[in-house]
Amino acid sequence: MKDTDVGMANFYSVIPAGGIGSRLWPLSRADAPKFLHDLTGSGQSLLRDTWDRLAPLSGEDRIMVVTGRAHRAAVEHELPRLTDPNVVLESEPKDSTAAIGLAAAILVRREPDVIIGSFAADHVINDQVGFGRAVAQAVAAASAGYIATIGITPTEPAIGFGYIHCGGELDIDGASTAMLVDKFVEKPDLETAQKYLDDHSYLWNGGMFISRADVLLEQIGRSKPELLAGILELAEAWDTPSRGAVVDRIWPVLERIAIDYTVAEPAALQGRLVVIPGRFDWDDVGDFASIAKLHNRGRKANLAILGENARVLSDSSSGVVVSQTKRVISLIGVQDIVVVDTPDALLVTTSANAQRVKAVVDALKLSGRTDVL
Amino acid sequence: MKDTDVGMANFYSVIPAGGIGSRLWPLSRADAPKFLHDLTGSGQSLLRDTWDRLAPLSGEDRIMVVTGRAHRAAVEHELPRLTDPNVVLESEPKDSTAAIGLAAAILVRREPDVIIGSFAADHVINDQVGFGRAVAQAVAAASAGYIATIGITPTEPAIGFGYIHCGGELDIDGASTAMLVDKFVEKPDLETAQKYLDDHSYLWNGGMFISRADVLLEQIGRSKPELLAGILELAEAWDTPSRGAVVDRIWPVLERIAIDYTVAEPAALQGRLVVIPGRFDWDDVGDFASIAKLHNRGRKANLAILGENARVLSDSSSGVVVSQTKRVISLIGVQDIVVVDTPDALLVTTSANAQRVKAVVDALKLSGRTDVL
Repeated sequence: MKDTDVGMANFYSVIPAGGIGSRLWPLSRADAPKFLHDLTGSGQSLLRDTWDRLAPLSGEDRIMVVTGRAHRAAVEHELPRLTDPNVVLESEPKDSTAAIGLAAAILVRREPDVIIGSFAADHVINDQVGFGRAVAQAVAAASAGYIATIGITPTEPAIGFGYIHCGGELDIDGASTAMLVDKFVEKPDLETAQKYLDDHSYLWNGGMFISRADVLLEQIGRSKPELLAGILELAEAWDTPSRGAVVDRIWPVLERIAIDYTVAEPAALQGRLVVIPGRFDWDDVGDFASIAKLHNRGRKANLAILGENARVLSDSSSGVVVSQTKRVISLIGVQDIVVVDTPDALLVTTSANAQRVKAVVDALKLSGRTDVL
Repeated sequence: MKDTDVGMANFYSVIPAGGIGSRLWPLSRADAPKFLHDLTGSGQSLLRDTWDRLAPLSGEDRIMVVTGRAHRAAVEHELPRLTDPNVVLESEPKDSTAAIGLAAAILVRREPDVIIGSFAADHVINDQVGFGRAVAQAVAAASAGYIATIGITPTEPAIGFGYIHCGGELDIDGASTAMLVDKFVEKPDLETAQKYLDDHSYLWNGGMFISRADVLLEQIGRSKPELLAGILELAEAWDTPSRGAVVDRIWPVLERIAIDYTVAEPAALQGRLVVIPGRFDWDDVGDFASIAKLHNRGRKANLAILGENARVLSDSSSGVVVSQTKRVISLIGVQDIVVVDTPDALLVTTSANAQRVKAVVDALKLSGRTDVL
């Protein structure tokens, strides 16, 4: 039996499209979150890229998107083939356990054997074949009752990603490279990252989770029974006329917690979490340095320029310029520079400081200048 | 006799207000030249600062301004006490020999013994007393038939200024510190600038010239007889109804040449040029690094912020931000940075590259993007 055969008929893609991407301010912001931007020069949004990557695996009619009410129109514009039953709208952000849990609970009522795979709306993967192979193995592992994740084989000592430490190999039908997850580790310093890279038993945590929906919900229930109860009540009402009233009552009081803490880490401790090593390119485009790097992949260093109407005059050979205005942008003698030019806010920093952009967003919040957030 | 007594009754200030200040693009530009900006935080334009510095020396009714037709309204707005007979409008820029020469020729017809002093519209001098003393000595030297300049005693090994090498001391009534000018030297490299500083016989060339008007014109005539003939013909018609017709005929064909080449250098060679060492602060505000330096004079290093409505969020302890928009400007981890934010153009560079800004202006001209110049 080929790796690609087991369980794929039950596979359903879920795309939680929630995060703003504060480290990409002022490009990403509340009304224009990261997933709605073309950050790779592909000509379309990251969300649409994600859709295009998943559609061949689950089918277009089997992709559910969980997003904020405010983004409904934009999401539907980006994904014209997204159907109403596949749209889950959040009245306010409740982090990934609620978002993915609700999708699982809705889908399992419609289709008891459904296997869901949740994939961030704003990550970059170009190798469709490698990605598809890894998903197929993860689905096979999910068919066998495991919760599966896909880890990405590191290509450099990255300090901006979390890592997965792999444990023993498993013998799962259709998931020939599956391994137990020993543990998750936080973003390391450079020295540690280099050790991880040399060790070959560490993978980048891409935040992808593939599982039978019922298994996922059971795991949430072990960690957070009240949260699960809320999710199940929402799901019960979802496909009925009482959806609105139940959402209004329950959604606001759901606990905000990431699925890493309710599902991934507990499941790893219990030996229920497997990882499929992905041998494809991957980036979470976490900051402007990532964007510069993505643009320079395979080329000699140059200045990455984003913006259809960009008018840039520069002698810089590195960094990134994002132009959302029609202004002439002139850079002289600045290397590894990050310039983000939007109608109401300007950011100037360097690649090395790109991770600190979130601090500006926090400072703007504190000082009440939320008009530009 | 005191230094301040000789010839001051004949003194007339001339302010050529012509240069755009390309190294201060995109702040300074064709329709908003450097002299119309407040670059020091004084609360008024450099032109007005210049007027306020000269008025006590020559009197407000004895300050002539030579400027472009396009700047007439702005100049008159800045200088409400400037009278019509003291306004000389250029239909196109013809450099400093034509500008100062025409002023001299107009004034000498009105007042044969007039001594004119020409002072740039866009330099910064705070020490009014020291400046006044130097001007008085220069006027005394001019009374004695010399062409005088004021050199500024260097306080650092500046590489952005030209220098004057002083020759022998002179014995001029009312100009006790006057020396012959040995020669002018171009902007030096740092090593040479340090030698000049240690040598004590070099002064910064502040581009100030003080002379009897008839002596100045004679000197122009020795270098450029055709140019002088044009200037005299213009001056003859100036206070008559035929001014317009004569200007239209002659101004366009006048040679463009700086007064340094027609007057200062030849006069130095002929032993007719004297220099008064000025012991006052002076800066030509030639680039954004100068602005940053001026703002930090006497304070510990900080980020200079220009712009009444500036909304800057920064952890930078050095450099300069010029804000002409209402945008939030956020700087993270960039030092000695220069950010100039205007409605149609943005400049990002560093203090060390500030002199290279003119290259951008040249590139914009070449590429036809003159809308932002």
